[in-house]
Formats: sequence, C-alpha cells, structure tokens
Amino acid sequence: MLKYLVLPAAILGAAAAHADEGQWQPYQLPQLKSELQRIGITIPAEKLADLSKHPMSAIVALPGCSASFVSDAGLVVTNHHCAYGAIQRNSTPEHNYIVDGFLAKTRAQELPGGPNALVYVTDKVENVTARVLKGVTATMSGRQRNDAVEKAVKALIAECESDKGYRCSVPAFHRGLEYYRIRQMMIRDVRLVYAPPDMIGNYGGDIDNYEWPRHTGDFSFLRAYVGKDGRPADPSPDNVPYHSRDFLVLSAEGLRNGDPVLLAGYPGRTSRYKLPSEIRAARDVGYPARVAEIQADLDVIAAATKGSEAAQVRYASVVKGLNNVMKKSQGLMDGFARKDIAAVKDAQDAVFRAWYGAQPGVSKTLLAELDAVIGADIALGDEEFGYSVATTGELLKSATTLYRLALEGAKPDAERETGYQQRDASFIKARLTRLEQSYVAAVDQARFAASLRRYAKLPTSMHVAGLDALLPAPEAATAMYAQTQLGDTAARLAWIGKDAAAVKASDDAFLKLAVKLDAVGQSLKERRKELDGNLERVIPRYMEAVIAWKKSQGKPVYPDANGTLRVTYGTVAPYSPRDGISKGPFTTVDGIVEKHTGKEPFDAPARELEAIKAKRYGRFKDDVLGTVPVDFLSSADTTGGNSGSAVMNRRGELIGLNFDSTYESITKDWYFDPAITRAIHLDIRYMLWVMSEVDHADNVLKEMTIKYPAKK
Amino acid sequence: MLKYLVLPAAILGAAAAHADEGQWQPYQLPQLKSELQRIGITIPAEKLADLSKHPMSAIVALPGCSASFVSDAGLVVTNHHCAYGAIQRNSTPEHNYIVDGFLAKTRAQELPGGPNALVYVTDKVENVTARVLKGVTATMSGRQRNDAVEKAVKALIAECESDKGYRCSVPAFHRGLEYYRIRQMMIRDVRLVYAPPDMIGNYGGDIDNYEWPRHTGDFSFLRAYVGKDGRPADPSPDNVPYHSRDFLVLSAEGLRNGDPVLLAGYPGRTSRYKLPSEIRAARDVGYPARVAEIQADLDVIAAATKGSEAAQVRYASVVKGLNNVMKKSQGLMDGFARKDIAAVKDAQDAVFRAWYGAQPGVSKTLLAELDAVIGADIALGDEEFGYSVATTGELLKSATTLYRLALEGAKPDAERETGYQQRDASFIKARLTRLEQSYVAAVDQARFAASLRRYAKLPTSMHVAGLDALLPAPEAATAMYAQTQLGDTAARLAWIGKDAAAVKASDDAFLKLAVKLDAVGQSLKERRKELDGNLERVIPRYMEAVIAWKKSQGKPVYPDANGTLRVTYGTVAPYSPRDGISKGPFTTVDGIVEKHTGKEPFDAPARELEAIKAKRYGRFKDDVLGTVPVDFLSSADTTGGNSGSAVMNRRGELIGLNFDSTYESITKDWYFDPAITRAIHLDIRYMLWVMSEVDHADNVLKEMTIKYPAKK
Repeated sequence: MLKYLVLPAAILGAAAAHADEGQWQPYQLPQLKSELQRIGITIPAEKLADLSKHPMSAIVALPGCSASFVSDAGLVVTNHHCAYGAIQRNSTPEHNYIVDGFLAKTRAQELPGGPNALVYVTDKVENVTARVLKGVTATMSGRQRNDAVEKAVKALIAECESDKGYRCSVPAFHRGLEYYRIRQMMIRDVRLVYAPPDMIGNYGGDIDNYEWPRHTGDFSFLRAYVGKDGRPADPSPDNVPYHSRDFLVLSAEGLRNGDPVLLAGYPGRTSRYKLPSEIRAARDVGYPARVAEIQADLDVIAAATKGSEAAQVRYASVVKGLNNVMKKSQGLMDGFARKDIAAVKDAQDAVFRAWYGAQPGVSKTLLAELDAVIGADIALGDEEFGYSVATTGELLKSATTLYRLALEGAKPDAERETGYQQRDASFIKARLTRLEQSYVAAVDQARFAASLRRYAKLPTSMHVAGLDALLPAPEAATAMYAQTQLGDTAARLAWIGKDAAAVKASDDAFLKLAVKLDAVGQSLKERRKELDGNLERVIPRYMEAVIAWKKSQGKPVYPDANGTLRVTYGTVAPYSPRDGISKGPFTTVDGIVEKHTGKEPFDAPARELEAIKAKRYGRFKDDVLGTVPVDFLSSADTTGGNSGSAVMNRRGELIGLNFDSTYESITKDWYFDPAITRAIHLDIRYMLWVMSEVDHADNVLKEMTIKYPAKK
Repeated sequence: MLKYLVLPAAILGAAAAHADEGQWQPYQLPQLKSELQRIGITIPAEKLADLSKHPMSAIVALPGCSASFVSDAGLVVTNHHCAYGAIQRNSTPEHNYIVDGFLAKTRAQELPGGPNALVYVTDKVENVTARVLKGVTATMSGRQRNDAVEKAVKALIAECESDKGYRCSVPAFHRGLEYYRIRQMMIRDVRLVYAPPDMIGNYGGDIDNYEWPRHTGDFSFLRAYVGKDGRPADPSPDNVPYHSRDFLVLSAEGLRNGDPVLLAGYPGRTSRYKLPSEIRAARDVGYPARVAEIQADLDVIAAATKGSEAAQVRYASVVKGLNNVMKKSQGLMDGFARKDIAAVKDAQDAVFRAWYGAQPGVSKTLLAELDAVIGADIALGDEEFGYSVATTGELLKSATTLYRLALEGAKPDAERETGYQQRDASFIKARLTRLEQSYVAAVDQARFAASLRRYAKLPTSMHVAGLDALLPAPEAATAMYAQTQLGDTAARLAWIGKDAAAVKASDDAFLKLAVKLDAVGQSLKERRKELDGNLERVIPRYMEAVIAWKKSQGKPVYPDANGTLRVTYGTVAPYSPRDGISKGPFTTVDGIVEKHTGKEPFDAPARELEAIKAKRYGRFKDDVLGTVPVDFLSSADTTGGNSGSAVMNRRGELIGLNFDSTYESITKDWYFDPAITRAIHLDIRYMLWVMSEVDHADNVLKEMTIKYPAKK
C-alpha cells in the first residue's frame, strides 16, 4: 500500500516538534521513544506498549471514565465524579454520603455501586482489519459496505464474547482504516470504598467546571469484586475482591513545573482530522444551534420545576449534564472566535493537497469524493440534529426504544440492530429503569411540547423528510401525558419482551406515536448507514494519504480518540490565557480558604479549613509552594473519557488523577494548540493529605503502596 | 519631645522588612539609604532629597496629576487622562483630537490648554511648624485652635505669595504634627503638544480602569510657556517656552522583572494611620452608603439622559467620574471583604497600645481622647455625607458658592473663609463657567429631586441637624428649575461680585434656597472646625507616639499622602491575585491585537494594528518578551494624584509613567499589602514606539534625550 514518497528515517527526529499532542495507541509508543526519553520518561517505550506489563496492566476503564488499580485487592482509584452514581444511590436523607462523604472502615462496610458501576480490564487488543474488511469491495454501495462491516464486527464480537467473562468491541480507527478487537474483562460487582465529602470531591461545582484556578479533590475509591473462581460475577455477598496482580505505586515525592507526566486512559472522541468545511459547519451552524437548543431546554426545565424543590432535585443531574455540554459548546464557540482554526486547517489542507497532487500514481478523484461525502455528512447531521430536537421528550424516547426492541427481538440475534442484541438487554433495562430518578411528568410534558415548538422553527435544512406531518401539535402534549402509562417504571419495564403486534395494539399515546414515527426514524438510520458506508470507503483512503504525508515529515500519526486505551505524555506547565496573565501550574490548599464562602459550591468542610489554617500539612507540604498542592496543569493531550486517568511520573508512579481541562483548551477536540491546551489534574499529595489529615482514611492509605519524600 | 524609649541605631537595618511601602517626603530619603542601595538605586539618597537637583527638579505637578520635564524647553510628559481637558477643549466635530490624536509639528501649532492647564514647579519646602503652632495652647477649644492655625497658615501663604509668580500652601503632615510651606511656581500658559488617539491613550477605557492586563498608552505632551522675562504669565502669543534647566533623560534600554524603580509625584490622600474603628466605620457604613448613593445618582442620570445623545455627551465626564469613584469604592469594599484589614489593624493597635502603656511618663488619657475625637469625627462624617446627598443638584451648589462669595467678599481678605479669598477668585470663576460643559436643566432637575428623596430615606445619623425642615419637597423641583436663571452661564457669572443683600433680594429659586440653607451649612462647617481643631490637637500627639514606636523597631515613618511631592520606590514585579494565577509584570502589543474588537474601548487605530502585525518594532523590542512591551507593574507605593508620575530606573532615567493601580490594590489607601499591591505603569518603550512607528511624532522625539539599547 506504500504508494507515497517517504523521506528517509533521519527526518523522524523532527517528531520532537510535535510536543505533547497525541493520544497514542500503546503499540505506537516505541515510535516515540526518543521523545519520551527527551522529556525524561524512564520507563522503556516497549514496556509501556505492552498491556500485560506494569504500569499499563494496572489501567482500567469505568463506564465513560478511566481508573487504575492501586492495590492487589482490586482497589480502584478514579474521580469523585466518576463514582458519583455509586455514592448517590447509597445516599439517604439519614446517611447523606454525598454531603458527608463515605468511608468503609472494613471490607464488610463497602457499599454496592449499582448496575452502572463496572470495571473494565482491557486484556487483549488485536488488529482484525483484514477480517473486518474481507469481502468488502470498492464497488459496494455505502449500505452494502456498512452491512458487510457490521456483520463481520458482530461475528468478531460474538466469537470473543463466547467466554462470558468478557465484553468485546471492534472499534474502527481512522474511520475504518484499521479495526482492533478489544477484549475487556467486565467486572460487575463494584463497591464503594471511600469518597470524600462533595465539598472536597466536587469543590467549586459547576461554577469551576472547565476553570482554573481549580481546587477540586476529584477522587474516590471503588473495589472490584469477582466470584470465588476469580471470574466476573453478578453482585453477591459471596464475591471476593479481585486479585489485581498489577497496581500503581503512589508517589508523594511531589513534582515541579516542567516535570514530565505520562497519562493513560480511555479518551472518548476527538475530531482532529476534520476538514476545514467540517469545522466551519460546526462553528457556524452545529454548535450555535446546539447551544440555542440546550439553553431553551434548560429554560423550560427551570420554568417547569420552579417552586418545586422535589422536581428540581430530580432534574439536578439532567441540568448538570446539559450545563456541562452547554459550557463545553460555548467554550468551543469562544475558542473558534478566538483563533481561526478553520483558517489554520485551510493552510494545512492546502499544503496536504499540493503534496498529494504531486504524488505519482495516486487517485485523481479521491479528494473530490472526500469533499462530496463530507458535504453529505454535514447535511445529514443537520437532519439528525432536527430529529433529536423533535424527540427531546423522555417518554417518546422510551416508547421508541420499546417498539424497536419488540421489532428487533423478532429477528435472530446476529441480525438485530446494534444496541438491540441480547448482549445489550441489561443496558436497555437499566436505562429504562434509571429514568425514574430524573423524571417528573409535568416537566417532561413541558419539555416535549416546547421541543416540538422549537423543531417547527428550525431552518428547513434541519427538518427530517416526512417527519413534520407525523408530529403531534404541541398543544396535544397535555392529552398525551394523560393517556400514557410509560411514566410508571413498572409499566415501562412490563413492555420489555412484548412483541411488535402488542405494541401496535396499545392505545398508550407514546407507544402509538413511536409506532407512527418508526418508519421516518428508520429511514434516517438507513441513510446514515449508507452514508457511513461511503465515509468508511473514502476516509480511510484519505487518512492513508495523510499518514503518508505526515510520515514524509517524520511525524507519526495517532488516530482520533474512540473510547479505547491511549497513552499521552506532557510536562507540568502553566499557560497564558491572555497577554499579561499566567495561570498555574499549581493551586494550593490556601486557595480553598481564599475561595471559601460557606455556600455551595465553595463550602469546604470545617475540619478541612481547620487543618489548613493550623498548617497541619503532614508529609505533603511542597517545598517550593510552602503548603499542600491541590491541583496542577500539564500539557498532556486528553479529552472526555480521560476523567480518572492515572497521571504518572517518569517512573510510572501515580502522582495525579486527570479530571478536567481548562476553558481555553476546549477546542483541542478539533485542534491541539500547545500554547494554551492544558489538562487539569488532581495532585495525589492533596488526595493523600485529605485522607490522612481530614478524613482519616487510614485503612485505605495502609492498603496502598506510597512513596513518601525523604524526611528532612 | 523624645520621651519614648528608643532602640539603638543598629536596629534601623530592620527597615528592609518594610519593602516597598512608603510615600516619602524627599528629605526623608537619606534615612532609607541602605534600602535604596539594596534594591539597586545608584542615585545617592542625598541627591534625591534635594529638590534643586536632578532628577527631582525635573518633577512637576499638574492640577490633580504629576508630570516631568523632558526637554530644556518646557516640554512636559504626563498621562493622556491628565491632559484630557486640554485635548477636549480644542476638539471640534471637524478636528476631533480626542479620536484622532493631535500633533503640533511646530511650536506655532501648539494649542492653548485652557484655564485648568497649569504646571506647578515646586521650588522650596520649609518646615514652618513652629510658626504655625506659635501661640497655640493645649487648653484652646477646637475652634480656637483651628482659627489660630488657619490664621497663621493664611499669613504664611500671603507672605510667600507676595511674589505673584508663586502659588504657596502650608499643608499639615501627620494631621498637624508638622507643617511645611511649599512654594510652587505656577505656570499658567500651558499648551498641548502631542496626544495619541484616544484609542491608544485611553485604550480599554472604563472597562479596563483599575484592571490588569492593561494596554493603555496613557501619555501626552504639554509645554510650559512663560513671559519673556522667564516668569509665569497669563496666556499670550508673546510668551516663550519655559527654560527648564533640568529634565529627565528617557531610557529605551528596557527593564526586566525584578528591576528597581523610583517614582516621584504628588499622591493625593491616604489613610494609612487610621484606627480600626475608622476602618470599620468606612467598611460598614461609609463606603456602602457612598456606593448606594453613586449608583442611585448614575441611575437617575441614565434615565434622564435616555434618548438624548446630546445630553449623554454632556454628562459623559460626570458619569465617567462617578463610575471611577464607584469602581474604587467597590474595590475597597471587595478588598475589605477579602482581607480583614480591621483585624490586622486591631492586632497592630493592640501591640502599639501595650507598648505605649509601658512607656514612662506618657499621658494616661491620650488614647481615650483619641478614641473620643475619632468617634466624633465618624459621627460628623455621617452628617456631612447626608448634606452632600441633599445638595447633589449643581444649581444649588452654584447658588451656595455665589452666596458665600458675596458674604465673604464683604470681609477683609485675610478674614475670608479659605477658598473664598482673592487668590481663589479665578478658580471659582473657572468652576462656575465649566459647569456649562456638563449641565442640562432637565437632568440636573431629576438629580436634584431624586437626591432629596434619597436624603429623606437616609438613616437618622446621616441627617443634618436643622436641615430637613428647610429642604424643598422633591415635587417642588420642577417649579424651582422654572424659576432660576443660574442654568445660564452668563447669568451665573453675573452674580460674581454682587453683595449679599442683592443675593438675598433675588427671587431666583436656587439663590433663595442657598440663602435659606446657609445657616445650616455654616453650622456644619463650624462644627467641622471645632472638631478639626480637636483632631489636630490629639492626633499629632498620637502620631508622635506611633513614630516613636516605629522608631523603636527601626522603622522610619512617612506621613499620609497630602498632595505634596513624594518619592516611592519598588521593583518590577508580578503578583498573584488568587491562588493559581499570576499577573504581569508586562503586557505587550500582541495583547492589543488580542483585545481588539473594533468597538470602543477596544478599537486600536488601524495603523497601529498594522504596525504590530507587520512586527515593525523599531528599536523597542524587548528581548525577553520578543515584542514591544506596553504596560508593566511595580511594587511602588502610589495613589490618586500619582497619575503621570515619572517612573525612573536606578540611574534616574525615565522608563515609565505611572497611571493606575490594580483592582486588588485599591485598599492600599488604608493598608499597604506588599503581596498584592501593584501600580500600573506605561512602559516608556511603548510611548516611544507609538511616537516612532504609529504617530511619527519625530519632532517631539528629536527634542528629547533618549538612550537607546546598543544595536545587536
């Protein structure tokens, strides 16, 4: 496949110019050997590339988060916000573990984390590209190609999951240039061991989200339990702690501005290889529409929950989630306004196209094909956005899920739509159950009616073909909520397993609407499959050319994040958000006193304030800062999903937990600007200080291996 | 008078601990010799103390501002905002020098600065304490003491001003512990030479006022003209440039973080020696009341000028002034909330009182007397505030001035109230004339009526004895503005020189009100005189004790600022406003591009943006910053009045102009916190760069002596 002119290997030294950008697949690390050495990482790149070896074998995933083992008895450290569900479900007005924190002094006191508390241990990554693409031809239609790939992927997963202890996936890299089959042991009995009070673990709350200076102690501890046979098992009192052969050693020896850091975790999604046209569409249409939509939905929720504290509590997590997306989208728009990333990409794109045009024997039509499929993708994305607006109501979403489940359930498992297979059943049930935690009929009714009104006002390009005529009038919402049982969890769950005829026969207003909308929804999905097939045919060829181009400059290429295990590295570093200001790299406990207002989210526990004021720093005082550090910044390349990622020093010892990035960094999902991109990490010394001087979590401290600085 | 135990001189070395606090009288500098040497100042302290020698003889005052000579032909450099009046009065819609800037290419093109454009050259400072206090006894009433001091001061001034070329003053230091007679040559033909466009000189406007990062090019040039005999003269085309024997050399050699700076100018007022009770009164009553009052007045002006651009333009400077006081007051309140300065002072006060109590032979009643007069001062201050609220209307203020002028005019000059003597006549006339620039009858009427309403709602402690019954009802305002001529400048000025009987006989509504309120207003003044006499009897004895106490710790004591020439020093230094953030010490021209929105106040001239983007740095690029610096921070001790102050390097060369301080520094008027107090200076390299690359003010550049960095 090497049809591009490639420069001699000597040029590869130029990789140094790339600094800290890159979410690398572990197997790529040996390509970055000299760079890792240059910044001072002493673990051999080959060792870092081996998932069966320390430290990578200590790195695990949680749903949507990253984590690591910190003892040989399945003790897992992650972010407080990643363990939040487990803390919340165990909290009652009498035992409010959110507010007060929770500490199991013995294993018997550890609390069940619930169905969403899972620990995934990646144990095998295989390149299965050839198997996935076997039989795929260049002349297939998009739909045919998509079906062929989906079929192959399903078979690869089924084969892998024949061992019931594993969860497998076959994600595409570079949008289908390569496929890797990833096998993860899914531990499903995960318990809460220790969480600090919310006003440590979530200090600063939504106000400080994406902000620096930051003083969040975003850590919690879970423990993975397995059956007595050592294999994953359903939650049971008979289970035993998982014997984690590898775990990270914690280092309280501290770090300094400029020190190297390594970070391993599961970043979710980036868009680093998008075309300028995609950036412009996102900047000028996609994000503004999304921000307007979320703001409108937030306003509706605020109005509908006004005066009812109970309703506000129920929607607190929905609002928090929307606010988070809102702030991120707003940050992207601000970032796009600050720096013309599209123009930067224009310049890169022009250089690439010129280089490509000069290569002998390359396709003359590839770039035109690329522009065409990307144009179609942007257009279809607009319709999909419109569809998501029209279906904001949670009952409609549940009804749609139930009807699809009935239809797909009638097929043989391998032919079912992805997401509706037997392996997805428990997740569907969990989702349909979980709705009760954040649902109030009157509020959902208001959101449903308002979203129908907003959909009607969207530009034509965002209207879905055939949908408008089928949607009820917003005024019909009242009657529909009077004529549905789906707001009741038992009634909702009772539909699982019913056949399509039963659903069709129901006079439940939302099931009726779901049946009515199904053809339009499916048609949208069909068009997506056709388009995805085309994208997967064209983009890998484009990425292949991009990789060759980068290689000609001596630069290795990492794939966009796709929720798989990646390694990134960087250095502890401040940044200048504006001329005349420098931020970071450290905050200290003094800043907690400074921010303290006594009101959430700036209401640190009295016992913590006391320890700070009394300068009870224990063994965690930083010599340069003169006090205990709290959070720090590094130039490592992270994104959503990296929450809880282990931040390690040059020797692979745990020195921090990743939990956020700065506001100015938000555009990094599209373009990594090394001057301003900074990830925010918890300094492990703060965690250890809280455990030792504030929460007295001595049993947890004792279980871990901690390197302390030499006494002076 | 040395009745305190004083430690040996060796302890004086401890002065170093005082760092950069202190607005020193020049004669005090030899006491700080080792400190000046320590930070790297190479000019001998004795030379700095001599007002007849370089560089102090190049330092001048403008009304409310500071400045310095920068050529031997009377060329003066100061802040753009200090020359603003001169720029404004020469601007027309056709020649808008505010917007476009102004450059006289020849002396003939220099424009008259107007009656408020004055240059004061301090040429003599004498300690006249003995003459002022001669005949003052400890048993005098406050009023008697005040009268005696006032009489002596008037005589000292009259004696000094017998030479008409001079303006003299006898300010009290340490509230009457010492009096110095200051003789200043008052140059009253001052012309505008060069001002950059507003969007350089006032870049950032009110939004950036008190803020960092700052990118204001706050400089302008004036020239002092005198008669052919070399003495001050009324403005005349026959006048010639003043021959300024001494002037500052400018250095474009640049400076670095940590470099020493010297700053000489005329700080207005500080309150560093206030008691904790005074801080609490200001914090809890004074500033909150003032902020509420200003906000209410601003709201009234906004409502009354709404829809009329002409009215808005007229009130622009009033609003700007109120906003400035508002921001400063708000900054003080924020600062008091951030740091409990009263508690800090409590601790200092307790140590002082303990020390004082242990001194042999000191007054046992002094501290009780002090607390009593301070308590009375706070209470009277409340009433004075109430009086100022009730008399917000400008026509009432003018009427009061005219009636007082008539009454005082009937007395021999020496017996007239301060401010109404012959020597004040031109200032009174200028003030009464200037009103027309910022007066619209309907707006003043609204302010007057609203202020009466607000006064009525003030707490009892702020009501002036006897005043309430005399004030008109707010509803009467309409009729009063229909029945007054004072809104007309000619009519207003026509009352100057009329006698009291004529004023009393007038049926002008505001003159009638002024006559009616006179007794209450005078009574308030009488009580102030009585109280001032008491304060001046007690506070100097207290300050004497404080000075002895400080001396016992080896620390010299500077008097509170009182508008007289002072020297301060410090180093170029960043600061941390909050844990995890560092600000400064430099901004650069890149920040102008960053802030540019194209809308005021962030609308830099196109030719400047072009020069920045083209990196036309001339000889002004800083090697560390890689571009041209704009503003910088130092730890020098400044306050209002220091605007335009020369900032000099270790050799006394001009390297900057002081023009503001950071928001966090605002509390420095009460308490100098070296960790966060920073003055904001223009980097002289930015001024020279603008002159050279943007405005091409080559003739002005040529007139000055500039040291450039060695070419590389």
